[in-house]
Amino acid sequence: MREYAISLDAKKMPDAWYNVLPDMPSTPTPVLHPATQQPVGPEDLAAIFPMGLIEQEMTTAPTISIPGEVMDRYLMYRPTPLRRAYRLEEALKTPAKIYYKNESVTPSGSHKINTAIAQAYYNLQEGVHSLSTETGAGQWGTALSIACSMYEMACKVYMVRVSFEQKPYRKSFMEAYGASVIASPSDTTEIGRRMQKENPGTTGSLGMAISEAVEVAVTSGGKIKYSLGSVLNHVCLHQTIIGEEAKLQLDSVGEYPDVVIGCVGGGSNFAGIAFPFVQDKLKKNLKTRLVGVEPAACPTLTRGPYVYDYGDTGKMTPLMKQYTLGHNFVPPGIHAGGLRYHGVARTVAQLVHEGVIEAISLYQNPCFKASLIFAKCEGILPAPESSHAICAAMDEAVRCRESGEKKTILFNLSGHGHFDLTAYDAYLRGDLQDYDLDEEILEKGRASIPDVKEPA
Amino acid sequence: MREYAISLDAKKMPDAWYNVLPDMPSTPTPVLHPATQQPVGPEDLAAIFPMGLIEQEMTTAPTISIPGEVMDRYLMYRPTPLRRAYRLEEALKTPAKIYYKNESVTPSGSHKINTAIAQAYYNLQEGVHSLSTETGAGQWGTALSIACSMYEMACKVYMVRVSFEQKPYRKSFMEAYGASVIASPSDTTEIGRRMQKENPGTTGSLGMAISEAVEVAVTSGGKIKYSLGSVLNHVCLHQTIIGEEAKLQLDSVGEYPDVVIGCVGGGSNFAGIAFPFVQDKLKKNLKTRLVGVEPAACPTLTRGPYVYDYGDTGKMTPLMKQYTLGHNFVPPGIHAGGLRYHGVARTVAQLVHEGVIEAISLYQNPCFKASLIFAKCEGILPAPESSHAICAAMDEAVRCRESGEKKTILFNLSGHGHFDLTAYDAYLRGDLQDYDLDEEILEKGRASIPDVKEPA
Repeated sequence: MREYAISLDAKKMPDAWYNVLPDMPSTPTPVLHPATQQPVGPEDLAAIFPMGLIEQEMTTAPTISIPGEVMDRYLMYRPTPLRRAYRLEEALKTPAKIYYKNESVTPSGSHKINTAIAQAYYNLQEGVHSLSTETGAGQWGTALSIACSMYEMACKVYMVRVSFEQKPYRKSFMEAYGASVIASPSDTTEIGRRMQKENPGTTGSLGMAISEAVEVAVTSGGKIKYSLGSVLNHVCLHQTIIGEEAKLQLDSVGEYPDVVIGCVGGGSNFAGIAFPFVQDKLKKNLKTRLVGVEPAACPTLTRGPYVYDYGDTGKMTPLMKQYTLGHNFVPPGIHAGGLRYHGVARTVAQLVHEGVIEAISLYQNPCFKASLIFAKCEGILPAPESSHAICAAMDEAVRCRESGEKKTILFNLSGHGHFDLTAYDAYLRGDLQDYDLDEEILEKGRASIPDVKEPA
Repeated sequence: MREYAISLDAKKMPDAWYNVLPDMPSTPTPVLHPATQQPVGPEDLAAIFPMGLIEQEMTTAPTISIPGEVMDRYLMYRPTPLRRAYRLEEALKTPAKIYYKNESVTPSGSHKINTAIAQAYYNLQEGVHSLSTETGAGQWGTALSIACSMYEMACKVYMVRVSFEQKPYRKSFMEAYGASVIASPSDTTEIGRRMQKENPGTTGSLGMAISEAVEVAVTSGGKIKYSLGSVLNHVCLHQTIIGEEAKLQLDSVGEYPDVVIGCVGGGSNFAGIAFPFVQDKLKKNLKTRLVGVEPAACPTLTRGPYVYDYGDTGKMTPLMKQYTLGHNFVPPGIHAGGLRYHGVARTVAQLVHEGVIEAISLYQNPCFKASLIFAKCEGILPAPESSHAICAAMDEAVRCRESGEKKTILFNLSGHGHFDLTAYDAYLRGDLQDYDLDEEILEKGRASIPDVKEPA
């Protein structure tokens, strides 16, 4: 009998998140204040985040215990299954073993709920009853809407305009959980009005939406805090539950991955599946490959410089050292909206810079093709973001067929594609474009990167 | 630590489907040939079904072994979790325990895949490579599309026009798995053209769509077989895996239900969760209540007579004794498209008639209200069909609060509502109508019930 789903007894679930900061090969790069360009202290972030999350942003504790209340919410849908893709292996005629963590079965349909619950919880602990945020494809906005609904908190979501228009039902989904959803850039913020004036007819970007959501928090007199769905260390931290569970599940069948693959937008999905393997790789000197996959239309890690930049278009966030296409860069309207981000988590960036993590980029058409093969074999229709990880995993498996290597491949199926049927429609009609970004476009983005004097 | 999800070791999964026919208190009513009105034999059904399924339609064997190949496909997503709705219990302040089987996490997002895989398998065994079918809300069409994709079979889906228009992404979903989807009634069949002529501007119905799909099979010279998503005994049979698993899962926590609830369209979802409890109820003389919930806009069990009628509008199917609103009845365009069926499985009907099963009907607005409370507590957005079971379960739990009874309630969450956001939008806007069917409408439907001389 084939064991497709490797379960994990809820009683054996990891009870702490893994913090990569103390395991970084060199000192983590400091986060700088946008005005002074000096390292930020907790008080600098207090206007937009609760202290519980600020502590997690900076701590060098090796693990953070998951609070009982958060664990109780996790147990409503976790541990998620680790699945062996036997049918996909057969279809590819590969000697490789393909495993994937199935985060598509969470309440929000993606991994994003793992940090949404934690963030809502820490805000509520400090008396905050209202959150603002941005969303690209809608996965993050959905997750925060559900988490806020669980805790009876208000939730305002700025949704990147191109996704708002491509995915009307995402908006309805969030509204069903009581959130208010606004297409970004909007007229509801000063920065939104300015960005529309400067970029008439813009499709929007995560960078713009972040600026709007941050403005709402900053100007609320402490009533509204801002919540970010990726990039920051506390977000990556909360997602490590994915990789930690996967490790235990693989161990239960006597496996350890040779390659760990995740798609990369802001980096939290990738961090979630890959960070728990960083420690082993560095301390036990393992050869495990950790591969981040980004879209060729937004090639942050593969074509951006490693420098300080803002996290948003409006320059409201702190400066972080990262690979960046420039905070003014607006990527083409590919359907993997969650991967349309100019920058990346500073931890992921530093680990790429230090050679611990690899990065590759893929066009969207081969990703959709891979996605439909996966759907046929495994039954699950993946999110366009996840299709990048699937495509990379399949490419790796095909290389194994050619080389005869029996590698163990692990990837994260970050979400389902139930709200991405417009994209599949377009793919099946042959209407999807693969974007080759020319130097001119990249240079325009790079021009917005600020001149920052790095701390010694 | 709360155990929200009660899992079941795949190795302990039931290896046979439960057949209710031999356990019926009185002899099962015979199925009659539409032309002769005499009991049908296997050969009469051979034009549209493979022999493997015809046998299951008629057998009185107490169980049917699940073939290894079907079991292997089941193991890709089964056993599904049984969940304890702790949060919902708290919200309702009820002393009752509420459990639900979560069929929303299957590849198709509903229970329908359980029979789709089995039906595709038995057809393929007999050399059939192409299936035609109907779908209401799209859950069944999606399931058969995925199953056909798994076995590399062709799939043609006639989708009730009102759902086709309400749920454009359902169509895309099916197409992503390679199916062809046609709004019914259509111009592609003789009967579709006739029905459009007789009912100009009709929203369609399951009865009409069945006629079209059957015509395609009958006129294919044996190349295409017809596949039905509910009503027939073999379909109900395949769904019993739900209730069988639930029984084992409840048993593992020392529970047995006082009330088992499922929504009823054609009856297979209800049969799936409830039939495995029929045997206990009859043989052990238990007081377990088995409650089928239908929409007030299509009140088959609660307002229809118990007589012989056709399964489809075009009178192409055999005659079955059932509760029926008349095969010409076209229910109002409520959003629970999967419950818009004029008739019901003859086994469910007979058990209602004999008092083993109860039936109630509910309006759609309270169902959507219940659904959103459930979503807030449990995180999962239910299908409008499933919302009927949820609403009934919540009503029961509220009665327990009033009476102080600590009942154990079990219901089936048959599917998620990711493709039903139009419906939730309309509900939130206050745009949903609750239909009170007047005698005139019911009489018009009843007028189409044929005069059948019942066999002695």
